[in-house]
Order: sequence, then structure tokens, then C-alpha cells
Amino acid sequence: MTGQHPVTVIGLGSMGTALAEAFVDAGHPTTVWNRTAAKAAPLVARGALHARTMNKAITASPLVITCLTSYEDTIDAMGPAAAALEGRALVALNSGSPAAARNMAEWAHGHGARYLDGAVKNVPSAVGAKDTLLYYGGDESVFTEFESTLRVLGGDTVHLGAEVDLAALYEMAVGSTLLPALVGFFQGAAAMQARGLTAASMVRYSAKWFEMISAILPGFAEEIDSGDYGKAASSVNLFHSSIAQDEEFAKEANLDTAWHKPFHDLLERAVEAGHGNHSISALTEVLKSRTA
Amino acid sequence: MTGQHPVTVIGLGSMGTALAEAFVDAGHPTTVWNRTAAKAAPLVARGALHARTMNKAITASPLVITCLTSYEDTIDAMGPAAAALEGRALVALNSGSPAAARNMAEWAHGHGARYLDGAVKNVPSAVGAKDTLLYYGGDESVFTEFESTLRVLGGDTVHLGAEVDLAALYEMAVGSTLLPALVGFFQGAAAMQARGLTAASMVRYSAKWFEMISAILPGFAEEIDSGDYGKAASSVNLFHSSIAQDEEFAKEANLDTAWHKPFHDLLERAVEAGHGNHSISALTEVLKSRTA
Repeated sequence: MTGQHPVTVIGLGSMGTALAEAFVDAGHPTTVWNRTAAKAAPLVARGALHARTMNKAITASPLVITCLTSYEDTIDAMGPAAAALEGRALVALNSGSPAAARNMAEWAHGHGARYLDGAVKNVPSAVGAKDTLLYYGGDESVFTEFESTLRVLGGDTVHLGAEVDLAALYEMAVGSTLLPALVGFFQGAAAMQARGLTAASMVRYSAKWFEMISAILPGFAEEIDSGDYGKAASSVNLFHSSIAQDEEFAKEANLDTAWHKPFHDLLERAVEAGHGNHSISALTEVLKSRTA
Repeated sequence: MTGQHPVTVIGLGSMGTALAEAFVDAGHPTTVWNRTAAKAAPLVARGALHARTMNKAITASPLVITCLTSYEDTIDAMGPAAAALEGRALVALNSGSPAAARNMAEWAHGHGARYLDGAVKNVPSAVGAKDTLLYYGGDESVFTEFESTLRVLGGDTVHLGAEVDLAALYEMAVGSTLLPALVGFFQGAAAMQARGLTAASMVRYSAKWFEMISAILPGFAEEIDSGDYGKAASSVNLFHSSIAQDEEFAKEANLDTAWHKPFHDLLERAVEAGHGNHSISALTEVLKSRTA
């Protein structure tokens, strides 16, 4: 036996395939399983072993990594062979809510598996790269025992803590910004087109903008963690005063502005709560006041 | 006379002060004006000349740069001395809407000035740095004549085109993503705190997230410009299917989710319009269908 742990990858979508490829290329004996078996063929050609049943997939390796669509799908797919999990390390890399991650862990523990829950913070093509981030929550003994194997998937591999839902929690907390940020970009793109310009022409400026946002996040985090919003680089009032301008801009391009309204409401509520001269990060306090 | 053009900076807020400092440090004869004269003192100590009247400020230099809060403030402040603008180059670096920029240009042209409209895409402390971006729209002869002077403010200095509202247009198009992206981050921070974790602990992961978003923007822009949304790396359906999970996540942390609703509505409308299997960038088309 070589120094490389055998590993099983269950689920060969674009991400699961990328994970399996990385293990094969790093010399790990790699067993793969997919509901549609044909997807395994290119991996077998690359050197992977194809398990025709879930039971064979699980028993092939002490470390079983799943990459199916959801926790529910994972439990459904593994269910008939769940007894084979006894004594093995199970790592799930799908996305899902913290509650679903906790439920998954309970299911795995019920079948005698040690469980680690993780997330790949990047696109499939980035799997295996030095700065690709994966984070995990749950059984630290699994992380420690298989750390060098897990690190094959990305050089920036982190154990967040023993709670099994931490990866899902961080994933959703960090991901909260994705759809809103994209819709903002799409609005900008539509405004460009309304002027006969291309969306492509704004990309490099948008990238600079996201760099700038990233640069100011540590300051915002400090304000939020200390609860001291008094030293405002960008105040609630500054954003509040630009509401009319935002509307005028979108209307000039004949765009739907319905999605602006709740942001304006948040700003209004922040001003009413006395946060006008505070940092825009004080909106965090307004979000904590659940009304709906 | 040295090779350095004399320049006047009007408005000494944190950005205007940074602009004037950069010119002084680069050896430009620099005249400054501010409504509250005391703000000029540190700049005078650094080598700037202080103009006590707007008329003296304008007549001191062939290039006059304004950095007041808005176009309206700029017109108000310069109004009494507007006749002095005849034959000079005027550059406004405040933020504002494209319509307000066009209005400003009309006003400047009415007083015989050549007009260039610009925006500083960074924080005051970044003024003068090699990769600091400033972009301009309007009179190209002003940009060409004073390009080396303008480049003192940032190494990445761009003329977008002859239309005077282009900088304002790009600024607002690109900036459309700011508040939504921040609110997403603030929701994540509030969720962290609801679990007894810090906002600071998610910052490095959020920065990676914004890097990833930046990396996928060129692909989205291509889809939007071609109108071909058929090859979806992330489909509308994928986002649509995570609505329940988003709600569950925010509710577990007891957060206000009212601001999610219009995003869900956009996703619903996109699915109804047949974009379910299309790229999430197809939301651009939905935004173009103004309903409100």
C-alpha cells in the first residue's frame, strides 16, 4: 500500500468529477459512483475504479466523500447501503442549510459513521489549486486523519470547528451577498445596454468595485462586532440621500426598480432608529429587528 | 514656468484634500478654495496657495477641478464667479446622476468653459497610487491637454468617450451593486453573531467570494451582450430552488427577510418568462421589463 489513502467519491456532477480527477491525479486509489453510470467512464479511463453499487462504493475506502445536489439526495442515494458506513469517515460537500447539515450528521452518526461537513468555495476548474478554499465543520478526528487527502482538493483547507453545521453556516452567511450583488451588476448591465454600450465595458470597473468592497469589509466587521458605528466612513445618511438618484438612474434606463424598495425601507428604518450619522454597517442592527 | 500646469482644486472635503495634496506633492502650482477657509491651512503649510474668493480660485489656473458634494452644490458655489470660467477647463469629480452631469456640462458650456466630467473610483487615501482608477467623459481636448496632470491623481486614468455623462453613467451602473452587496454581507454578519461568532471571522471568506464573483462577470457580460443565456453555469432554477433555504437560514438567526422578497419575485418572473434553465444573468432581461 502506498502512503495515499483510498478515497471514494459519490456523485459525478461537474464538481464531483473535478474532485475525483484531483484524487486520481494525486495518486489516490479512487473509487467513484454515480446514478448515471456512464459519467464514470472518463474517470475510469483516467485511472479511477467504478463501483457499480453504492455498497461497493462505500466499502472501497475508509474515506467517503459525497458531492450530490443536496443532503436529502445524499441520504436517499446512500440509504439502502447505509449499514456499510459503520466505522468509516463520511464527508459531504454539497450545499445546504445549517439545519439540513445537522440532520445529515445525525443520520450519519446513526449509522456509525464519523462525519465531517464541508464546502468547496470555488468553481470546479479551481479544484486542486493552491489558493482554492474548502472549509469543514464537524468531527476533528476525521479532519486530522485525512487532512493531507482533503488538501489535494485545495491548498487553502480549513477546519472551522467541531460543530457539524459550521461550513453550511459560513457558506450561507458569506453567500448571502451573491444574488443581491449579481442583481446589482445585472441592473448596471441593463443600463449600459439602454445607452447602446456593452455590459462587457463595465466588467473591469465592476471588478475594481468588488476589490474596494473587500477592502472595506474588515472595518465594517469591526464596527459590527464592537457595536460602535460612530466613526462612519460611509454613513447611512449618505446612502439615504442617494435614493432619489438611484431611482432617477434606473428610470432613465426604463428598468424595473421594485427591488430597490426594501433597501430604501432599511435605510429609512435605520434613520428612524437614530443611525443616520452612523456607518452604513449599522444596517446590521436593523436586519436583526425581525418584523416579518 | 516649470512643465507642471497650475491647477485649482475647489472643495476640500477628504477627497478634495487628497486631490490637492497629490498635486502639491507632484510639484504643480496648486490653488485651493473651500467654503470654510480653515480647511485650507494644512494644504497651505504643504505648499498650496489659498484663494480667498471663488473668482481668484478660478482665475489662478487654466485647469479648475471641483470636488464638492453634488453638481447642484458646485453650480451654487461657482455661480457668482461663473464669468471667470470663460476659456478655462473645468473638471468636476463629484458623484451624481447622468442627467445632473449633462445639466452641469450645459451650465459650464454656457459660461464658455470646456468641460470634463469624472469620478474617482477609490478612497481618498488611494489618490495618487499607480492602480487607482479615475474615469472621465466629455471634452476630449481637455483630457488630452491635461492628461499628465490628471494622471497625478491615479495611474489608471481613462477617457470613456466624448459624452459628458459617461463617468456618471458608469459610476452608477457599476455602483448599482454596492448597497445590495453590503446588505448581503450585513445579513451574514448578523447570522454569525446570532451563533455567537464574529463578523470578522467571515471577512476573509467574503473577500474570496467577491473575487469569485469578479471572476465570473466576464462570462455573464458575454451572455448579456449576446442575449444567449443558454449555456448556464449557474441557472435561474438553481437560485430559484434555494429560496426556501435562504428563508430558513435567515429565520433561524431571527433576521428580517423582507428584503429577500423582490429577489424571489425576480426569480419567479424569470422562470415564468421561460428562463428557468438559462443563466442567472437572464435576470437582466427581467429587469428591463419595467412594471412599476
